[in-house]
Amino acid sequence: MTHARFQTFDDPGHRTGAARIAALRAAMLQKGFSGFVVPRADEHQSEYVPPHAERLAWLTGFTGSAGTAVILADRAALVVDGRYTLQAAEQIDTAVIAAVPLAETSVEGWIEANLPAGGVLAYDPWLHTPDGVARLERAAAAAGGRLEPVGLNLVDHVWIDRPSAPRAPVVPHPEALAGEAAARKLDRVREALAKAKVDALVVSDPHNLAWAFNLRGGDVGHTPLPLGYAVIRRDGSATLFLDAAKVTPEAAAAIQGLAERADPEALPAALDALGASRARVRVDAATGAVALRRRIEEAGGSVDVGPDPITGMKAVKNAAEIAGARAAHRRDGAAVTRFLAWLAREAPQGGVTEIAAVERLEGFRAEGGDLRDVSFPTISGSGPNGAIVHYRVTRATDRAVRPGELFLIDSGAQYVDGTTDITRTVAVGEPSAEMRDRFTRVLKGHIAIATAVFPRGTTGAQIDAFARRPLWEAGLDFDHGTGHGIGSFLSVHEGPQRIAKTGTTALQPGMLLSNEPGYYREKAYGIRIENLILVEERAISGGERPMLGFETLTLAPLDRALIAPDLLMPAETAWIDSYHARVRDALSPLLDPQTRDWLDAATRPLADPAP
Amino acid sequence: MTHARFQTFDDPGHRTGAARIAALRAAMLQKGFSGFVVPRADEHQSEYVPPHAERLAWLTGFTGSAGTAVILADRAALVVDGRYTLQAAEQIDTAVIAAVPLAETSVEGWIEANLPAGGVLAYDPWLHTPDGVARLERAAAAAGGRLEPVGLNLVDHVWIDRPSAPRAPVVPHPEALAGEAAARKLDRVREALAKAKVDALVVSDPHNLAWAFNLRGGDVGHTPLPLGYAVIRRDGSATLFLDAAKVTPEAAAAIQGLAERADPEALPAALDALGASRARVRVDAATGAVALRRRIEEAGGSVDVGPDPITGMKAVKNAAEIAGARAAHRRDGAAVTRFLAWLAREAPQGGVTEIAAVERLEGFRAEGGDLRDVSFPTISGSGPNGAIVHYRVTRATDRAVRPGELFLIDSGAQYVDGTTDITRTVAVGEPSAEMRDRFTRVLKGHIAIATAVFPRGTTGAQIDAFARRPLWEAGLDFDHGTGHGIGSFLSVHEGPQRIAKTGTTALQPGMLLSNEPGYYREKAYGIRIENLILVEERAISGGERPMLGFETLTLAPLDRALIAPDLLMPAETAWIDSYHARVRDALSPLLDPQTRDWLDAATRPLADPAP
Repeated sequence: MTHARFQTFDDPGHRTGAARIAALRAAMLQKGFSGFVVPRADEHQSEYVPPHAERLAWLTGFTGSAGTAVILADRAALVVDGRYTLQAAEQIDTAVIAAVPLAETSVEGWIEANLPAGGVLAYDPWLHTPDGVARLERAAAAAGGRLEPVGLNLVDHVWIDRPSAPRAPVVPHPEALAGEAAARKLDRVREALAKAKVDALVVSDPHNLAWAFNLRGGDVGHTPLPLGYAVIRRDGSATLFLDAAKVTPEAAAAIQGLAERADPEALPAALDALGASRARVRVDAATGAVALRRRIEEAGGSVDVGPDPITGMKAVKNAAEIAGARAAHRRDGAAVTRFLAWLAREAPQGGVTEIAAVERLEGFRAEGGDLRDVSFPTISGSGPNGAIVHYRVTRATDRAVRPGELFLIDSGAQYVDGTTDITRTVAVGEPSAEMRDRFTRVLKGHIAIATAVFPRGTTGAQIDAFARRPLWEAGLDFDHGTGHGIGSFLSVHEGPQRIAKTGTTALQPGMLLSNEPGYYREKAYGIRIENLILVEERAISGGERPMLGFETLTLAPLDRALIAPDLLMPAETAWIDSYHARVRDALSPLLDPQTRDWLDAATRPLADPAP
Repeated sequence: MTHARFQTFDDPGHRTGAARIAALRAAMLQKGFSGFVVPRADEHQSEYVPPHAERLAWLTGFTGSAGTAVILADRAALVVDGRYTLQAAEQIDTAVIAAVPLAETSVEGWIEANLPAGGVLAYDPWLHTPDGVARLERAAAAAGGRLEPVGLNLVDHVWIDRPSAPRAPVVPHPEALAGEAAARKLDRVREALAKAKVDALVVSDPHNLAWAFNLRGGDVGHTPLPLGYAVIRRDGSATLFLDAAKVTPEAAAAIQGLAERADPEALPAALDALGASRARVRVDAATGAVALRRRIEEAGGSVDVGPDPITGMKAVKNAAEIAGARAAHRRDGAAVTRFLAWLAREAPQGGVTEIAAVERLEGFRAEGGDLRDVSFPTISGSGPNGAIVHYRVTRATDRAVRPGELFLIDSGAQYVDGTTDITRTVAVGEPSAEMRDRFTRVLKGHIAIATAVFPRGTTGAQIDAFARRPLWEAGLDFDHGTGHGIGSFLSVHEGPQRIAKTGTTALQPGMLLSNEPGYYREKAYGIRIENLILVEERAISGGERPMLGFETLTLAPLDRALIAPDLLMPAETAWIDSYHARVRDALSPLLDPQTRDWLDAATRPLADPAP
C-alpha cells in the first residue's frame, strides 16, 4: 500500500482559542486599541498561506481557507461563508468567539453593530488591500469609531512559537517549458507599464513573480512558487525581494542580468526610494497590501491601484505551455485511469475507504513519473461526503465506499510541464435511476461547455448557463462556478478568466479553464464531472465572425453505468463516444494490459452492449 | 387605402447647421465660454423628447436618438454610435461639424484632445446627470480647462422659433387597468424611502411619475406620459409639478388627497425648501439632472444619488396589468395576422412598399379598436433595408418588397390596457436555402429563450447566450440585446430588466420582456423574430429550487416557408406546433373568414404537407 506524501488526513485542532484570544486582548488593550481584525490572509492575499501566516487558525482553531475574525474587548466573531459555517462552529470555542455566517452579516456589518462608539479598531496593513481597508474604515466610522494600522501584527506579539517564514529552494523554470525567456516577458511588462503611464510595478502576487522571472519554489503547499516581491521599473532595472538563503545558485544565475536580488527586509526602503523619485507606481488591486501603497505615497510617490498586467499575460498560455499541458494530461490521465480500473475491481468488495483511494491515486501518479506535488488536497467523498463541495477527508470522517453509493474524487497533480485538475464520479454497485438522471444532466451541461462555440470577446459569464440548463430543466442547480482558470506548473486556481456569473474577462485563445458542473444532494451523494479545457480559435465554414471554442485536455473515461442514454441528444452521444475513443487511443500505449482491457470496455460506444 | 396617423415618413432635414452653429458660437463667446455641450437629451434623459427639447436636431440637423455635439470656437464634433455614423454624416454639414464615431473616440476623449488649455466648457445642468458631469469634468481637466454650468441653455438663446413645451391633456389611468390604487403605490414608495433612510424622493423619470400616480398624458410621441416632476416626502405630502393647463378635471380629482399640484416653475423653490429642512433626498441616478442635486445641496440638504425605487416596482406587473397585456396581445395579434394574410396575398405581385405596409398594418390595428398610438415608429424593411437594425422608412428610402426577398416588420401598439411590440420576418416568393438556415437558427434561439427554465435570482445576462448559440455554431451573431423590458400602456422600452450582456437585474415573476434574436446580412436581408414574454413561476415535479420560466404573450404566426425542419430538434418542432395551435385558437374568433382560412394553413403542424 502506498502512502500519501503530499497531503495529510489529520483532524484539525479543536477549540484552542480561549487562552490565545485572552492574550491577544491583553496586547490589544495595552496598546490602547478597542479591537483587532484577523483575516485569513498573508501579505499576498494567497489562497494557500505558509504556516507562519496561519494567524487565524492559531488564534481561533478555524482552519478553513476563508474567514475573518474581529476581536473586541468583550466579544469576538469569526465571519465565514456558507462552505464553512458548520466547520467553524466545530473548530472554534463558541463560548469565546461566535461563528457568524456571512449570509447573516458581513465583517463590516458586524463591526458596525458591535464596535463601541469612540472605539479604535486596529488592523495589520500588510494583510488588507486598499479596497478592504476602505470597507473597514466605513464600517468603523458608521459605528462612531475609527480604524488604525499597527506596526507589528498583534497576533505575532503573543504567538510565542510562531514558525519562521518558509525558505524552500528557488529554482529556474526551464525556458523549454516556460516557452518564453524571462527577459522577453519583462519587456512585455514594461510595454504594459508604458501604456498604463506608470513608472514602476510592485509585483505582490507571487504567482506573477514566478511567471515573469521563470522561477519556481515551494514556500506554500501544492503551488510551486517562492513567496516574495518584485519591483519592475519601466525604464531600468528590476529587483527581486527573495531571501538569499533560498535562492539556489542556478536561480541566481538565471536572474543575473534580469534583476538584482535584495532581502525581503529591503522592500520598504525600495518603496521609499520609488516615492522619493516621485514615481507613479502600479500596485495590484487584488493582492497588493495597503501598506505598499501608503509607504510609496508617504515617500512622495503616487500609486495607481489597478490590475497587475502580468495576471493577464500569464493567463494566456503559449505553445510550449500548451504542449506541456497536453503531455501532463496524458501522464495524469493514465494514472487516473489505472486508479479507476483499480477502484472498479476493489470497491464492490466494500473495503475501499476515502483515504485509501487518495493514497492509491497518489501512488499511481507517482509511478507515472515527474510528480512534484498534488495540486490541492484531494477531495475524496463517498456517499454523503460527496455532497460536501469542499470536503477534505480526515481520519475521523473517513468511510468506506459502499455498493449502491456514488464516489466523487476531485484531484490534481503538479508536474513540471503542467498542472492538472480532474473530477470523476463513479457508481459502486448499481446506481439508482435518480443518480443516473442527475449524472446525465451534469454530463449534458459538461458537454454543452465542451462543445460551445462563441465569438471573440465572449466572457465566461455569458456561457456559464450552458452548463446549468439541463439541471435547471429539472428544477436543480449547483452552487459554484462552472470553471476556473489554471496555471502552468503554478496554482490550480488562476485568474482572471472564469466560467461563472462573475466571469467578466473575455476568453482568449490559450486560456486554460476547468469545466466542472456538478449536482449535490445533501446527505446523500455528490456528482461532479471535471475536465480541463483550452480556449482555441475555431474556423467555421461560411461563418462571418472570428469564433472560439474549447479543446478538452483531460483524458480519463466517464462512468458509463451512470449515463442514461435516453436523456442524450444524438450530438451528445456522439461527443461521449468520440471523447472515449480519444481517451483510449491516447492512453492505451501507457497502460498495463489489465488496465488496457478495462479501458477498452469502459470506452466502447454507448450503443454497444456490455461485453 | 388607409394612412398612418401616428407616424410620418418625411425625409429628415439636411445640413441646416452652419448658420445656427455660428449663432451659438457668438452667444458662447459673448459669455466668455470656449465651448458648449449639446446632448440629445431633455431634462428627464428621455428616449423620446418633445420638439422644444430637440436642440441637437435643430442645431446640427442630426435626428438620431443618441448623440452629443461639442461646439468649440474653431471646431465642432458630433459623436454618435455605430447605428448613426452614416446617418449623421448625411444629415450634418461636415464642413462645419465633424461626425465622430463613438468607436473612434468618446465625447470625453474628443474634449480632452480638443478643448484648449485654460478653456471653459459650458453645459446645461438640466441635461446631464451627476455621473455624466463627472465624466465631462475629468475630460475638461485633462485638457487643462474646466467645466461651467449655464443658467439658460445657450441653444435656447439663439433658437428664435423654438416650440413651447407640450401640454397634452393629463388623464387618470383607471385603477381597473392599473391594478393598484395610487395611494397604495405611494405607501410602497414611502416604505422604500424609509428602508433607504432618505426623507424624500425627486421623481425625475416621467414614466415613474405616470406609474406611481396612475396618470397618463401625451407630451411625447408613442409613450402616453405627461412630462413633469414629483417630490414624494417620506413623512407627509407629495407634490406633482405639472402645468395647470394640461391637467384635466378628472386628473385633478384623481390626484386630490394624494398630492398637491404645483407649476413646473415652482420646482426649484421646492428643492430649496427640501434643502433648507436638511432633508436627505434620493435623486435617480439614471434620469435625475445634476441641477436637481446641486439645488438641494446648495440649500443645505444632502443628496443620495441612486435608483428611483419606483423603477423596480413598475417593472413587476400585477394581475390587472397582466390581464390587460393578454387582452392587448389578442387584439394586436389579430391585427398583425390580418396584415400578414394581406401581405401574403399582395406582396408576391410586387406592389407592396415599405410605407404601404406600415399604413396597412396601422389600419388593421385601428380597425381592431382601442388603438391610442403606435408604440414606436414601425421598422418596415424590405430586402437590404431589413439589415439596418434601426431602419426608419422615409419617402426617399421607400422600396417595394420584391419576390425572392425577405421583409422584416417590427411594430407595436399602445392600447389603454397594454403596450405591444412584435417583429415578424416573412419571405416573399421563394427564399434561398441560406435564408431558411439563418431564419431557423434565429428561431431556435427564440425558442431557447421562450422555453428557458431558471432559478429565482437569475439575471437576463445569464440566459442571453441561449438565444445566440444556434447562430454561434454557424459563426454568426447579432449586435443587439436579446430582450428589453416593456411598460403597461407606457414606454415600449422599460428597465431595469433586460436579456443582454448588460442585464444584471434578477428576473422576477411579473416582469415583461421582449424575446427578439435576429440575424442581419448587410446589404442583403434582415431577420428578427420578436414576441413579448412574461416571467412566471414554474413548478417542476421533483425539483428542489424555486424556478421561473416565460409565458409567451404575443400571438401571430411564424412564416413556415422560412423554417428548415431538418435543423430542428423534436422539442423545437413541438414548441412551434404548439405555439401555432395556441395562436390559431386564440385569434380565429376575432378574424374574418378569409384571414381565418389563411391562418389555418399558416399554423398547421410543420409535418403536414402544404394544403
